[in-house]
Formats: sequence, structure tokens, C-alpha cells
Amino acid sequence: MANANLQPVLDRIDADFDNSLERLFALLRIKSISADPAFTGDCKAAADHLARDIATLGFTAEVRPTAGHPAIVAKANGGSGGRPHVLFYGHYDVQPVDPLNLWHRPPFEPAVTDHADGRKIIVARGAEDDKGQLMTFVEACRAWKSVTGSLPVDITIVIEGEEEVGSKNFVPFLESNKSDLKADFALVCDTSMWDQNTPAITTALRGLVYDEVKIKAANRDLHSGIFGGGAQNPIRVLTRILGGLHDDNGHITIPGFYDGVKDLPPEILAQWKNLNLTPESFLKPIGLSIPAGEKDRLLIEQVSSRPTCDINGIVGGYTGEGSKTVIAAEASAKISFRLVEGQDPEKIRKAFRDYVTSRLPGDCKAEFVDHSSAPAIALDWNMKPLAAAKQALTDEWGKEALLIGSGASIPIVADFKRTLGLDTVLVGFGLDDDNIHSPNEKYDLKSFHKGIRSWARILAAFAEAPK
Amino acid sequence: MANANLQPVLDRIDADFDNSLERLFALLRIKSISADPAFTGDCKAAADHLARDIATLGFTAEVRPTAGHPAIVAKANGGSGGRPHVLFYGHYDVQPVDPLNLWHRPPFEPAVTDHADGRKIIVARGAEDDKGQLMTFVEACRAWKSVTGSLPVDITIVIEGEEEVGSKNFVPFLESNKSDLKADFALVCDTSMWDQNTPAITTALRGLVYDEVKIKAANRDLHSGIFGGGAQNPIRVLTRILGGLHDDNGHITIPGFYDGVKDLPPEILAQWKNLNLTPESFLKPIGLSIPAGEKDRLLIEQVSSRPTCDINGIVGGYTGEGSKTVIAAEASAKISFRLVEGQDPEKIRKAFRDYVTSRLPGDCKAEFVDHSSAPAIALDWNMKPLAAAKQALTDEWGKEALLIGSGASIPIVADFKRTLGLDTVLVGFGLDDDNIHSPNEKYDLKSFHKGIRSWARILAAFAEAPK
Repeated sequence: MANANLQPVLDRIDADFDNSLERLFALLRIKSISADPAFTGDCKAAADHLARDIATLGFTAEVRPTAGHPAIVAKANGGSGGRPHVLFYGHYDVQPVDPLNLWHRPPFEPAVTDHADGRKIIVARGAEDDKGQLMTFVEACRAWKSVTGSLPVDITIVIEGEEEVGSKNFVPFLESNKSDLKADFALVCDTSMWDQNTPAITTALRGLVYDEVKIKAANRDLHSGIFGGGAQNPIRVLTRILGGLHDDNGHITIPGFYDGVKDLPPEILAQWKNLNLTPESFLKPIGLSIPAGEKDRLLIEQVSSRPTCDINGIVGGYTGEGSKTVIAAEASAKISFRLVEGQDPEKIRKAFRDYVTSRLPGDCKAEFVDHSSAPAIALDWNMKPLAAAKQALTDEWGKEALLIGSGASIPIVADFKRTLGLDTVLVGFGLDDDNIHSPNEKYDLKSFHKGIRSWARILAAFAEAPK
Repeated sequence: MANANLQPVLDRIDADFDNSLERLFALLRIKSISADPAFTGDCKAAADHLARDIATLGFTAEVRPTAGHPAIVAKANGGSGGRPHVLFYGHYDVQPVDPLNLWHRPPFEPAVTDHADGRKIIVARGAEDDKGQLMTFVEACRAWKSVTGSLPVDITIVIEGEEEVGSKNFVPFLESNKSDLKADFALVCDTSMWDQNTPAITTALRGLVYDEVKIKAANRDLHSGIFGGGAQNPIRVLTRILGGLHDDNGHITIPGFYDGVKDLPPEILAQWKNLNLTPESFLKPIGLSIPAGEKDRLLIEQVSSRPTCDINGIVGGYTGEGSKTVIAAEASAKISFRLVEGQDPEKIRKAFRDYVTSRLPGDCKAEFVDHSSAPAIALDWNMKPLAAAKQALTDEWGKEALLIGSGASIPIVADFKRTLGLDTVLVGFGLDDDNIHSPNEKYDLKSFHKGIRSWARILAAFAEAPK
């Protein structure tokens, strides 16, 4: 531990942890659901709240408008010019909470409870994604400021409010705030550890294409007794088309879908095999036992290095209680594809739409909505800050930090590279059982506590590492 | 016109028509949606309202409880014992009104408006099915009573409140009220004319099996980035299974589904060909042009004499605005089968469930809900009251009444035969463009007016026909 201030900072984090938790709870109580216009005011409230809090740490913090929910830009520069300068990114918006009846407690009334296996957990929508995660960084800054009166490196914090709905307005915001967001590299805290005891830095991320398709047939809902058998049923058409997206071996059948997809280098595949991600370890906690992806691939490939297709939602016809003998006029589905290096999101979107359109029977029309897209990311495993962060994580957790690929998409990483020219270090303390995007989202109390300590160490390490 | 009272009765119907319409409107204003428990009080109100109204026509009319919404039993007997005795059946309950935003006016605020082609129409939920239809009979009785002080035949009226949800409680009600419901034959007014100018009596009805399937996989909703590719997706499973229910030629693929289904006798098929039901006449009004059923069958066979399978509703995952990268824990669909003579509803239900279960991948469970079932009906084309009714309809409409098959199910017809030993005469004045079960349900003003006149004639004809 080269930095003499680090131990007092870590002690300060431990001593102040109850207050850190209370500050996280205050943020978790704000219903900042970005997808639903009914919560627009709550999104603004979350941004205001965070900017006020960050301003108390010596940052100039501003809430800035975007074409959607506002973003926060906060800057704390030593002024010397010689220190490393990091751009930290997080998002204050959260996913919708439905189905609400499956939550064990109200999603915006955070509490620390006991997990089934005895772990202490923080339960609330956003407890992990991304309020808990971003607050690990804010609280680490608070401890440094409190103990030393300053921060070990120059820091710009940018926090957006539309990550869960595709960041459509945040990318133009980056473009138009370029000069204010200069830094040496970016930090993102929105990823997971390898397991409860093993920290990880994510160096590869899958991309995403999210599309919606609506099939329309008759000009109105029909009675299935009068028209059944004679009139086209859009739910039948939709299930037939979507039901053919995978073959019996779990491969995606869209022509050209796998174009450009490369196999893992043998040495990486060998490393991954050693990680021993098994159905027992990965699927059993969610009540499953059989990998559902391509049958000729390892489970770890299925969830991190192979492209996928999931139907995220479907609706049509009568879905209330009881029965209704209706043939609906339309039916729709939301479909997303996780992409890997080599796949072009817009080519995949077009291939999907062509696939649907070419299978439409006469009398049916298809309409599409483009929700979002992002290419896959493969970071440079040799980028300089990575080694410093890896050592700091290893020191905190007492176990060597892994460099891993993630199945999820964090499109902002590509945007940072493209708009600001920045590489990103992805460090996060989530776990696979955090229920993000689901009822009963949680964040381990240990993740929150040691996450704060991890960032305190990482900032110290960056201060001493070569830029 | 043998009955000297008939012409004054018909004149009375014409003179009193505005009042008939107002009485129908009063019934249409009651939101008697049987499927939704929120409208239980409205169902009771509709029953009370109808019983009060029918009591003014010299009937002893009672609202009687069932295990669900109440039924009405009303009796008007001449006491002579020598007259024919008919049991008239209708239902006061209506279908749900969603999607509400597609209605051009509030569904429970009836009005007479102009159809696009100039026809006057009554618009409201239940305008046809079955409030408008049942009131044609009630108003015909009113005219007879008003002109002659009595009714031409003995009449028992039974009106139920759960037809749209499968009549589950009405069948036990029939059993336990058997002695009160004795009659020579039954009349049902819940069917359609052949076209706007051609009256029809329905002598064959398709049966129905309505089932709901829910596919469950993981023990909670999952993030598609973390688990996508590795975890089973119930929407993918559901679409794959349902998408295989039909082959490329429109045949249903469930093993044994067509067992016992007979082809039409050649002479009936020849008659039906002459009816010239074309895509132009039948599908164009609903915005379609291509028969969607079995490719080797006539359109008229597809919609009336062939069994079908329709998915009436489907839902799973995120269906709100925007996008959510979720893998749902479950997905469900409502599926109904129209059956024809020779098919056993419970065998079909079991075959469907076996079909689903046999296609379930590991890690998935299927749960089923039995909504209703009814066998197909083939009535005796030579039953005596048919000839009298056919002549009366022909007299009223100036065009020979047709004996037709219907694609829809009216399960009560089988229940009358089984519980009360009664054959049924099905006369109705609906049209294919009535939008029953859909937004903007309507009943032609002409159907309502000439429907009342038709029943007045039919009652007179029954009085003179051999029992």
C-alpha cells in the first residue's frame, strides 16, 4: 500500500458505512423509472438529488437538460494538470417494477434484509442497477475528500437518466458536451463480479439490437365462431414466425445471422473452461438445470461470447380473466438480439425484419419499431489502467481479479470510444442473483461496502500508475 | 295469414317501434359484463330490469340465483293445456369491451347511427349479442299481449347471465329447475341471417373447447444480458409450440384431431357451393381477401363445417411502452377449438394438452386452465316446428328462409337436449358485420324491427302448426 492516505480512507469508509447506506436509501426511494412518462418528475428529482449530493464533495455539479431525462455533469480537478483524469459514468434511472405482485416488499422502500443463505442484502428497485453501483464510487470519493480534503486523481462524473431505455438522448448529449467531458479514460460501474468472492473487470460486452414487430390482419377484432377457420389470425402468424427463430439445436435461423461471428481463440476457450461455469452453479439458483442455447457450445460461451435471440414480450387478443372467443386484429412482440464482435447491429435488424416479412402470409402486414442498438465491445486486454485496477481489486478481495466477458450490453462504452475517444474500465460488484430488471432486485451489503473500499483503492492505484 | 290477429299485431309493432327501441336502449345501458367480477352488480341489475319488464307482459317472472350471475325464469301459460309450449332462451350478459380506444362511442351509451352504406344501425356492446336479439322476442310478446290480451302459445322464458363465460353455472341450474322448464321445444335467438335480406334457421352448430396454457421456466424474471442464451425463455417455448399447431396447408397438426370428422354429404356440399360464399363477399368487409383455413376446403366449409384452432390471446414478458431486456418467468395463451360432429371435446382437450406437454423442453412446466367445452350440434332438419318457422320467416322477409350451418357454438342447445329433452329452433337476425365480441358492436335497425315482426309471425305459426 504505497499511498499513506489509503488506510485512513478505508477506515473512514468502515466507520461511515451506516451513513453511506442511508444516502443510498435516499436515492433508492426516488421512483426514477425512465420508461414510463408518469415518472418524469421522479427522474428529475433523482438528478437534482444526486447533483446536490455530489456538489458536497468538492465537485462543480450541474443538472443539464437533454432531449429526454436530464443528465448530471460534475467535475473535480486538482488543477495541477499532471494527474490522471478519469470520467466516471453511471445512471440514475431504473427499470419498471412490474409484475408488482411478485415483490416481497414495496420496490421503492429500500431495506436491508436477510438472503435465504444468510447474506445481508439491500432490497429495492435500483439497489444494484445502477444506484447501488454508482454510489460505491460516490462514497469512495466522499471518504477520500473527508480524510484528505481532496481526491487522488482528477474526476469528472457523468450520470444519465435514460440507460434503461437505450440512451437515445444521451449520445447527442455526449457529442454536444465533448469539451466538458475530456479525460484520460472512462470508468463504468454497471457490471458484475465473477462470484461472491471473486472480483472481475469486464473486457468484452455483447451488443444489442432491440426491435418490436406488430402483425396486423383484419380491420377489427373478429368473433372466432363466425370467422374462425376463414380469417387470418395474427397471433397464429406471430407465433409461427417467432417459433421458427431457433432450430432444434438452439441455433438462430435468420439467414446471415452468424456472418462475421468468430470462434473464441483456443487459449481463451481453455481459460474459460477452467472457470467451470456449470448448470449447477449458474442455472440452479434460478430454478433451471439445462443450458438453453446452442447445443454445441459451452454454457459460458452461450451466455457471454455467442449471439442470442430472446423474445422479451408478447401480447395479443384477450388476456384478461376467463375466456373470450376473439380473433384479434393485431398481435405484437418485443425481440432482442445479443450481438458479438463481428456482427453489425443494423444488418442484424434488417435480417430479422426480412425474415419476418418473407414469412408473412397474404392478408397480413408487419410494422416494426426500432428500440435501440449497440455493437459488441471488445476492449484491449492490455490497456494500462487495467493492471492498476486489477491489482487494487485483488488487494481488497484477497482473491485474484478476473478479466471476463459479459453477456450484457453497455452501449455507452462504444459511445465513449466514438464520441470522446476514451477506453473504458468496467468494474462492478453485481452478482448473478441480484434480480436486476426483475422483482426483488437486491445488492449484497458486502458488494456495497467492499465496492466502496475497492474504488478507494482503485483511485489510489490510478494516482500512482503511469497515465 | 290464417290468424286474424296477426295483422293488427304487426301494425302494433310498427306503431310502437320507437318505444321498443327505447326499451332496448335501457337494457343496453346496463354494463352486464359477465367475465369481469367488477361488473357483478351490473349483471344483477340487468336480470332485475328484464324480470320487471317481462312481468308486465303477463308472465310470472322471477330472478333466480345460480352459483354465478342470476338467471330469469318467466312463465305465461294459457292453462288450456292443449296449446304448444315453447321455451325461449337468451342471455343478458355481454363480452368485455376492450380495446376501449377502438370504439367510436362509449359502448354502454347506445345510439342509432348511420352505417357507412347508409343502413341505420344500433351501436352498443350487446346491441346484437344478445340483448338486441332477445328483445326481438320480448317485444313480439308485448305486441301480442297488447293487441289480444294474451299470447298465442304457452311460453316459458329463461335468460341467463353467463353465456359469454361458458354457462358453467347455468347447466346445473337447468338440472335443478327441470320441472319448471318443461316445454315442447326450445327457441334460441342468438344466430345470424344468411345476409341482410335472407332469413335463416341454423340447424348445425360447431362445438367448442377453450383452454389456457401457461409455460413456466425460471423461478423469476431474468436479465437477458446475463442469462440470454443460457436460460430457457418461456415465450420462445410457447411460440414454438403454438406456431406448430398448423401445417403449411392450414391443417391442424395435433395427433388425432380430425378423428371422427366426416366430410359433408355431396348433396349438402352442392347446395353450399350454390350459396356462393366468396372471399369477396365474406372476407372483404373485414379487410381480408385470402381464406386462412385448410387449403383443400371451400371457404364456407372452413367457417362452418370444419374444425378449427384459434389462439384467442397471448401474453408474456414486458408489454409496456419502450423496451425491457427481460426473460420472463412465464408466458400464457388462450386457445380455442371449434369442433364439428364426431369430435369429443374432452378428447380434443386432452390431445391438445398432450401435444403441448410432449413438446416441452426440459426445465419448462405447463399449466392448463379448462375454460369451457361443448360438443358440436347437428339438429334434425325435419323437426316439425322448423317448417312453421321457416314459412313465417319467408313471409316476413319476402325471400325464402335458408337452413344453414353456423361456425359458432351455442352450447346451450346440447344442454337443452340433454337436461330437458328438448330440440331447439335457432332463429336470429344478426349479420356477419355486427362486430359481436369486438369494438363497435351493432345491430341493424332493420334486424331489430323485422326481427320483432318475425317472432310475432312465428308464434302465430306455432299456434296453428301440429305440436
